[in-house]
Amino acid sequence: MASESGKLWGGRFVGAVDPIMEKFNASIAYDRHLWEVDVQGSKAYSRGLEKAGLLTKAEMDQILHGLDKVAEEWAQGTFKLNSNDEDIHTANERRLKELIGATAGKLHTGRSRNDQVVTDLRLWMRQTCSTLSGLLWELIRTMVDRAEAERDVLFPGYTHLQRAQPIRWSHWILSHAVALTRDSERLLEVRKRINVLPLGSGAIAGNPLGVDRELLRAELNFGAITLNSMDATSERDFVAEFLFWASLCMTHLSRMAEDLILYCTKEFSFVQLSDAYSTGSSLMPQKKNPDSLELIRSKAGRVFGRCAGLLMTLKGLPSTYNKDLQEDKEAVFEVSDTMSAVLQVATGVISTLQIHQENMGQALSPDMLATDLAYYLVRKGAHEASGKAVFMAETKGVALNQLSLQELQTISPLFSGDVICVWDYGHSVEQYGALGGTARSSVDWQIRQVRALLQAQQA
Amino acid sequence: MASESGKLWGGRFVGAVDPIMEKFNASIAYDRHLWEVDVQGSKAYSRGLEKAGLLTKAEMDQILHGLDKVAEEWAQGTFKLNSNDEDIHTANERRLKELIGATAGKLHTGRSRNDQVVTDLRLWMRQTCSTLSGLLWELIRTMVDRAEAERDVLFPGYTHLQRAQPIRWSHWILSHAVALTRDSERLLEVRKRINVLPLGSGAIAGNPLGVDRELLRAELNFGAITLNSMDATSERDFVAEFLFWASLCMTHLSRMAEDLILYCTKEFSFVQLSDAYSTGSSLMPQKKNPDSLELIRSKAGRVFGRCAGLLMTLKGLPSTYNKDLQEDKEAVFEVSDTMSAVLQVATGVISTLQIHQENMGQALSPDMLATDLAYYLVRKGAHEASGKAVFMAETKGVALNQLSLQELQTISPLFSGDVICVWDYGHSVEQYGALGGTARSSVDWQIRQVRALLQAQQA
Amino acid sequence: MASESGKLWGGRFVGAVDPIMEKFNASIAYDRHLWEVDVQGSKAYSRGLEKAGLLTKAEMDQILHGLDKVAEEWAQGTFKLNSNDEDIHTANERRLKELIGATAGKLHTGRSRNDQVVTDLRLWMRQTCSTLSGLLWELIRTMVDRAEAERDVLFPGYTHLQRAQPIRWSHWILSHAVALTRDSERLLEVRKRINVLPLGSGAIAGNPLGVDRELLRAELNFGAITLNSMDATSERDFVAEFLFWASLCMTHLSRMAEDLILYCTKEFSFVQLSDAYSTGSSLMPQKKNPDSLELIRSKAGRVFGRCAGLLMTLKGLPSTYNKDLQEDKEAVFEVSDTMSAVLQVATGVISTLQIHQENMGQALSPDMLATDLAYYLVRKGAHEASGKAVFMAETKGVALNQLSLQELQTISPLFSGDVICVWDYGHSVEQYGALGGTARSSVDWQIRQVRALLQAQQA
Amino acid sequence: MASESGKLWGGRFVGAVDPIMEKFNASIAYDRHLWEVDVQGSKAYSRGLEKAGLLTKAEMDQILHGLDKVAEEWAQGTFKLNSNDEDIHTANERRLKELIGATAGKLHTGRSRNDQVVTDLRLWMRQTCSTLSGLLWELIRTMVDRAEAERDVLFPGYTHLQRAQPIRWSHWILSHAVALTRDSERLLEVRKRINVLPLGSGAIAGNPLGVDRELLRAELNFGAITLNSMDATSERDFVAEFLFWASLCMTHLSRMAEDLILYCTKEFSFVQLSDAYSTGSSLMPQKKNPDSLELIRSKAGRVFGRCAGLLMTLKGLPSTYNKDLQEDKEAVFEVSDTMSAVLQVATGVISTLQIHQENMGQALSPDMLATDLAYYLVRKGAHEASGKAVFMAETKGVALNQLSLQELQTISPLFSGDVICVWDYGHSVEQYGALGGTARSSVDWQIRQVRALLQAQQA
Repeated sequence: MASESGKLWGGRFVGAVDPIMEKFNASIAYDRHLWEVDVQGSKAYSRGLEKAGLLTKAEMDQILHGLDKVAEEWAQGTFKLNSNDEDIHTANERRLKELIGATAGKLHTGRSRNDQVVTDLRLWMRQTCSTLSGLLWELIRTMVDRAEAERDVLFPGYTHLQRAQPIRWSHWILSHAVALTRDSERLLEVRKRINVLPLGSGAIAGNPLGVDRELLRAELNFGAITLNSMDATSERDFVAEFLFWASLCMTHLSRMAEDLILYCTKEFSFVQLSDAYSTGSSLMPQKKNPDSLELIRSKAGRVFGRCAGLLMTLKGLPSTYNKDLQEDKEAVFEVSDTMSAVLQVATGVISTLQIHQENMGQALSPDMLATDLAYYLVRKGAHEASGKAVFMAETKGVALNQLSLQELQTISPLFSGDVICVWDYGHSVEQYGALGGTARSSVDWQIRQVRALLQAQQA
Repeated sequence: MASESGKLWGGRFVGAVDPIMEKFNASIAYDRHLWEVDVQGSKAYSRGLEKAGLLTKAEMDQILHGLDKVAEEWAQGTFKLNSNDEDIHTANERRLKELIGATAGKLHTGRSRNDQVVTDLRLWMRQTCSTLSGLLWELIRTMVDRAEAERDVLFPGYTHLQRAQPIRWSHWILSHAVALTRDSERLLEVRKRINVLPLGSGAIAGNPLGVDRELLRAELNFGAITLNSMDATSERDFVAEFLFWASLCMTHLSRMAEDLILYCTKEFSFVQLSDAYSTGSSLMPQKKNPDSLELIRSKAGRVFGRCAGLLMTLKGLPSTYNKDLQEDKEAVFEVSDTMSAVLQVATGVISTLQIHQENMGQALSPDMLATDLAYYLVRKGAHEASGKAVFMAETKGVALNQLSLQELQTISPLFSGDVICVWDYGHSVEQYGALGGTARSSVDWQIRQVRALLQAQQA
Repeated sequence: MASESGKLWGGRFVGAVDPIMEKFNASIAYDRHLWEVDVQGSKAYSRGLEKAGLLTKAEMDQILHGLDKVAEEWAQGTFKLNSNDEDIHTANERRLKELIGATAGKLHTGRSRNDQVVTDLRLWMRQTCSTLSGLLWELIRTMVDRAEAERDVLFPGYTHLQRAQPIRWSHWILSHAVALTRDSERLLEVRKRINVLPLGSGAIAGNPLGVDRELLRAELNFGAITLNSMDATSERDFVAEFLFWASLCMTHLSRMAEDLILYCTKEFSFVQLSDAYSTGSSLMPQKKNPDSLELIRSKAGRVFGRCAGLLMTLKGLPSTYNKDLQEDKEAVFEVSDTMSAVLQVATGVISTLQIHQENMGQALSPDMLATDLAYYLVRKGAHEASGKAVFMAETKGVALNQLSLQELQTISPLFSGDVICVWDYGHSVEQYGALGGTARSSVDWQIRQVRALLQAQQA
Repeated sequence: MASESGKLWGGRFVGAVDPIMEKFNASIAYDRHLWEVDVQGSKAYSRGLEKAGLLTKAEMDQILHGLDKVAEEWAQGTFKLNSNDEDIHTANERRLKELIGATAGKLHTGRSRNDQVVTDLRLWMRQTCSTLSGLLWELIRTMVDRAEAERDVLFPGYTHLQRAQPIRWSHWILSHAVALTRDSERLLEVRKRINVLPLGSGAIAGNPLGVDRELLRAELNFGAITLNSMDATSERDFVAEFLFWASLCMTHLSRMAEDLILYCTKEFSFVQLSDAYSTGSSLMPQKKNPDSLELIRSKAGRVFGRCAGLLMTLKGLPSTYNKDLQEDKEAVFEVSDTMSAVLQVATGVISTLQIHQENMGQALSPDMLATDLAYYLVRKGAHEASGKAVFMAETKGVALNQLSLQELQTISPLFSGDVICVWDYGHSVEQYGALGGTARSSVDWQIRQVRALLQAQQA
């Protein structure tokens, strides 16, 4: 066969090494983010080896000391990569060897890249989840504080983007805050599944040297250990879950952004973004572009794309470690960065947003009270008569609240002087007192509920 | 303007009604699946209305009786849809009115389609989650039973699809079973978030008639009530979560299917599917196509597609109910059906699969023990010498286990007579005794762990 | 092994046949849509067999006659499926045999399901593409007709949803029509790749009986034949392309729908949907929900979901036919139905939409002319002075067009009496005369260009 | 309102500027890739301005000269970004002003960021498409060359991963090459739609200064100009198409990679990767991990994820430019880089792959000829008798080709001495002579067809 004699078919010449392949294969450009957790994992593992009698106390101390030095170099920006450092693990090992000599070689005994890399990633993501939880809580708290402060502002509630009923502005804020509390709850669940230790699984069959995985777990403060070494080294559920968590959270933020973009339009004019979160145009000075909100809305696509990409990569993959899994890390890093920025920008937007209370009030109109008119009659025992009032008002060409009591009484004798209350927007919202509604008491209840949730989650 | 005079531009003529639009809009073709939960929800709501003084006891009884009759007609297949029944809610209401007259009209007081439809969907999905949990548990149990029975079968473990180390066949089974336990755990979490009652949220502002939502919750046996009426009627997190749950579960099953498809090939010949799960070909009698496994593998795409579709639909949607949300139900129904079939077929496949133990054994070879040889030396205090043995064997053109003790001792004086144990596959697997490994004790531990998980989840 | 003795592990009992597997495997529920093209393909193939000497003329006639009878039964709704008809091909063959006896068995000589099914699907999709092209052209034509009729209506053009500059309403219509012309162009390209004949590829290796594939191509009026039998029976590019075509087209329609939903709000009030495409609410008579547009917007998700699902199914699949490919058809059928409905509903919406020209005009304001003021100065040779006018107007608290000539001249001596023209909206749009702009001549040019494209595509 | 007094709600304090928002908003980190095309576009536009009388010849020359200097700095790596350079356009303009003074300000007359950025992106992608086309052609050519050289190697063709029929190894190579020719065809179509000039569309309404867009088109060598300014500045079809092109191409490569990964296993042992494209393991020297192929397979997910992300971002976006569109560029850059690497690595893999012809031959077995036996009889006029021979062989426990002529004749008198030819694999493949089949003549025809396609596309 031609191939055996080294002859090539048409393609680019490639010797023993293809530089494009080497670059394609290398992960150091992004997995260097893991330097700290890689050191952390190695320190714990060297303690495990010592306990198992595979390192002497002196060897362990030497390794621990060397690893601290490696970490210090990274922290101080003095760590120098060389061209053979294809990933962070290789880089750290190489440097350790330079620092402490041959003992470094014993660190990897019974460990494989497969359990090492996934341990590192879990350590990194565990920390990230905590950081993102904190940012999410701050956003929710900001929203709840604002909802509390602005409880008396009314404006139109929309369905199908058509004005439906008067609601409290705080009710709107809380509708988004409540959605975010679910993201917060889910993130804790994801973190729980991230917080499981795979170290001690080896490449596939497990660890053959009697390393005590419970000790490793305790050293690294994981909540549990993985059950099966083949699964442990190749499952990326925790990555997929994290990416989906972010996707769903972004969906919420994209919906809030959409609302606010509309409320920022000249046509709605309910709110105004702070200059820090919008951009002007010298040629079109009347414009205040809500760039921050548009970017938030757009990131829902990017984040979901990463989730979709990972799932497609995982689909149909054979058991255990395959190089395909290397795709996990860039997705995690990018999505983490995006979520961190988005949550902080959203907090900034909400905390500096100006509202135009007068415009909000003027957007309320009597026709939005037709529902309340119906309930007025229901409470008096009649059903289905309010439609006639609407029809009468339309026929006469007047607003619903301009029908006289006499006119209303031709429709139903149940109408009496108290119908005047129906036309008061403040009175309207107070009717919706069932839990979850827009009455003040219910809004207060919501605020208390969300605060209690936050407190429970932070516990 | 032309449009005001009714003139049309070029397009198809459309009068007051466009039949294509009506069909486009109608959901009865699929939401009829909800007939039972719709009746269930209405019965609870009528009790709520009675408690709130909006229905008399007699009216409530009339409604309850009528609803039972509606349900009976559906159950017996005698319910007749008419052409105006655009969705299940309209259909049931229309029929109730035919059965009990005007009182039927009072049932909807203070309720809107928006809270009704999402209550129905949650009721339906809660039941579905329970069903799917049961099917998933049965699959896991089948796998664990099989793993226990076949603990002594060894075969090659692969990474990168290259033969890596000898492992127990049960270790492979458990690697997939353990992945499924995470799906099971997640499904319970999803169910918990499904099990929250939105009824009493009205269209947007809440319920204005003092309906006691805690009473409704208790009537329908929900775990909690939703916190905010705007969010409650328009959030579809629980749908997205369910679809993603299914996507991730399918990813696991697609990987197991991929393994088994390979193991069914002539080249691997480790397993043979039961006739019930494969198809032959009259023209190619040598073939036994693993159709069941290929279908399982393929459904990962379909299910994820539904998840992707829903998230895209949700992205950037304004607050509260928009008709876009109607897309939720077909996705849920299709994915539920798919998961039900997939889980049962997978259980059938696993429980009837024949294994070829002899072929499995013959696929093991001494070169897969190079790792063990290294560990042999590590245990005696040497590191990194086993590579030389591999090199020597290659140079001499013999299998690794054919090197004589003398030859080995030229490499390291630590080799002694006990090296013979290294070449025993049964001895090999027993070394991997750390938790999660492929030693018998560890496999037994895994079995106990998974069984305990199942038991805890079913509690 | 337990498995060899037939013992089962825990799972549901399954005999030689698992009814759930049979249902999981069967495609007749949806592939019956292919009845007509299946007959068509078989007729052509029987002619090919006759030409190749594998059927006598009499046998061929018998088969052709029988196939016509099968088709007639389908067309008249009298075709009766029986329980073994797992797919349309089996059903038609079974029926043919009942009708003409043993000769039926010769029809499949040298053909396999693999080349048959993909031939059928291509025939069906080729027809569907033509139908969808027609519907798309009708939508574009409707838009262009409307654009032509309403050329003199001005309203605000938005970027970032902020009012930017006055534009022609027709310019907006054309912006969406032009996007759709690209979909139309792409659909023709997809159709070209669908229109390639795979018949004569057998199961994998090709056709061994000398069938003349060029003759089959001519019989079935395909544009070309596939080049490689392995690829021909297993590639589904044409399906993926079609699904992506639909996804991108839906993205366009979702954006148009979004605009119109906004323009339908009380706040914008630029347009009003015909009753045929919106729904009212008895409780909230002021609302006119744009259900048609919301459904169009939402379908972008569903359609893309199908595309994503298929690509994931295809990813990493081994060569040639695998049962996974059975996922193709439901996606195609659902997306075709959706596109057909969406295109017709969109045409209906556009052709019956009422515009509120007065509101459109009132939404224009002098600040939207700041850009034009800048260009006024640029034409006279000054750059960057208009910002000062904006600043002066803001400082004085007057509209930009209320600055007097004297005031303007303090900013730049280039201002003269003709600045009055800048404040005329009609004059403003006429400046944008470069091709593609909003001047009347350019809008007319656009209309001519789109009409010419339509004509060329229909040729 | 609290917000009006500057009070903040709980959130992080933010002054006039939020550094996180600034970073979130800035694109310079990635759009600096556009430096060259940005200069190119600006040079053309300055020529357009001069022609329109808005720049003097001297001013134009000054600008052109300055732009050349800017480009030179980028090319030499001496361009210094400063902290206000939020994007490449701002950076280049700022530098131009430093270099040539106030005249620089005139360059942007009548141009907006909206038409500038999309012009730049189209210029960049046009070049990328050409590069990727070249790489794709090289891959196809390599495959065709190899297919031609190894035409006489036979091995099993699989369906459902079950051995089906003997085929030529070249037939397998060509099956993937033919798929790639469709990608090549599609890339040219995508390039055609990229190659349309949006410059001269302004921000939304068009260009008001009489710039001759046909002149700009000719300057920048575009194939056509965009038709509508609103569409031109905000449509990203060409990006979506490009990302989908890459996704579908990756699907093909993932399938080829999957095949080769299988063929590299110990069990198949048909091929062996060059060391340059695989990695070994010191602990497991028997392994040769096909990292290159696994990475190729995995990238299908990543690339598709970017496509999915962009479509989700586009869905439901209002007309014209919104900041969301800024998501387009990172997707394009990442996917372009990935495709470039993947295509080159795939070419390297194919051109250096070693095949094990002997193993391929040994994988053929008589049972794979049952189909041929059937056709042997069909040619003699019998149908459906070969199944009996298979059954007889199975009953007797012998290979199909071990049945004696007498035994065969008990099944059908049509069997004669020439049945011996059926058992020859070389004879078998030669039967598949219809176009597209695995006979040598047909394989040669395929090679000619693909070469002709390549030639036509490069023309």
